[in-house]
Amino acid sequence: MTSLEQLAKQLTRLPGIGPKSASRLAYHLIKSDPQYNKQLAELIASIQDLVFPCPICGSFTETDPCPVCADPNRDRSVLCVVEQPQDVVTIAASGAYDGLFHVLGGALSPLEGIGPDKLDFARLLQRIEKESFHEVIIATNPTEEGDTTAMYLRHLLKGKKLTISRLASGLPIGGDLEYADRLTLARSLRGRVDFAD
Amino acid sequence: MTSLEQLAKQLTRLPGIGPKSASRLAYHLIKSDPQYNKQLAELIASIQDLVFPCPICGSFTETDPCPVCADPNRDRSVLCVVEQPQDVVTIAASGAYDGLFHVLGGALSPLEGIGPDKLDFARLLQRIEKESFHEVIIATNPTEEGDTTAMYLRHLLKGKKLTISRLASGLPIGGDLEYADRLTLARSLRGRVDFAD
Repeated sequence: MTSLEQLAKQLTRLPGIGPKSASRLAYHLIKSDPQYNKQLAELIASIQDLVFPCPICGSFTETDPCPVCADPNRDRSVLCVVEQPQDVVTIAASGAYDGLFHVLGGALSPLEGIGPDKLDFARLLQRIEKESFHEVIIATNPTEEGDTTAMYLRHLLKGKKLTISRLASGLPIGGDLEYADRLTLARSLRGRVDFAD
Repeated sequence: MTSLEQLAKQLTRLPGIGPKSASRLAYHLIKSDPQYNKQLAELIASIQDLVFPCPICGSFTETDPCPVCADPNRDRSVLCVVEQPQDVVTIAASGAYDGLFHVLGGALSPLEGIGPDKLDFARLLQRIEKESFHEVIIATNPTEEGDTTAMYLRHLLKGKKLTISRLASGLPIGGDLEYADRLTLARSLRGRVDFAD
């Protein structure tokens, strides 16, 4: 195998990169600025040494604790539970949330062998005991796995003095009814909100 | 900017990688096998030292000359002129061609400031003088730039004792008339071939 084929083969192991894209990327890397290749290679080689899960919330960070957990201006009475570290970034970037986060590290999926022991429920319960949250917002994905995880979490938190909420599902803003899938439409009907003035 | 954001930013400079894919790739690289990251980083850092353009045909190679130019079993009377090094791989892989190649390094594009001086026509003419080709197959892309380049090449080779041909354009095999675009359909009509038995 040539170095070009080796590079392309390694690139196909990345998510969303098929053989055609991989080959296109490999050819691009041969012709790109050598300085760029060096920088990219260094970042790829060192990223796992620089970035680690925050020991409190589980999101990826370069400082201990992460900037969100360390921020004195955030509302420490609300906890948003998400599946993945990148969900923290997405929700923080929405500007509509200023509480704390907890990363489960995935969603329950019996088919893929992901049971409660594989996710970070233990530390979540510890945090809820120790810290003084008033509300837990379950922000797992609106998928079968995310819904299962949300229901498991609701069961787990039953009896605790907490408001438990879940992100609303429904039509995406700017979307078109005509293009909404059946499940989303059904969910937006079941979850319809009072519109009285 | 965090290392994660830096990595994602560098990845967006690759073709076909938008901000969302870049962020997805960066998060993937944090969680992937460290051994994989090291290998990928080494390949990216070293690819430009290992691979270089063949001094004869211009395709990418790790040996001088490239395996195609060095192969004594290939038909040295036919020359296939392509835009990019990867086109050599694509055409060679079709199994329908066993002649030699010449890479122009792009296509003429007045709008992007790519004139004849930016492409490797000089070495092509030298090869045609020195080597003994009977046919030159113009295999530039069936795009405006590729067509312009093909016409320029035809003009350049005028008067030489050579058969000049161009790859056929038309309906892709396995395609459906219903989904063919207007230009492809028009081209396939103009270029219709005798079907008499």
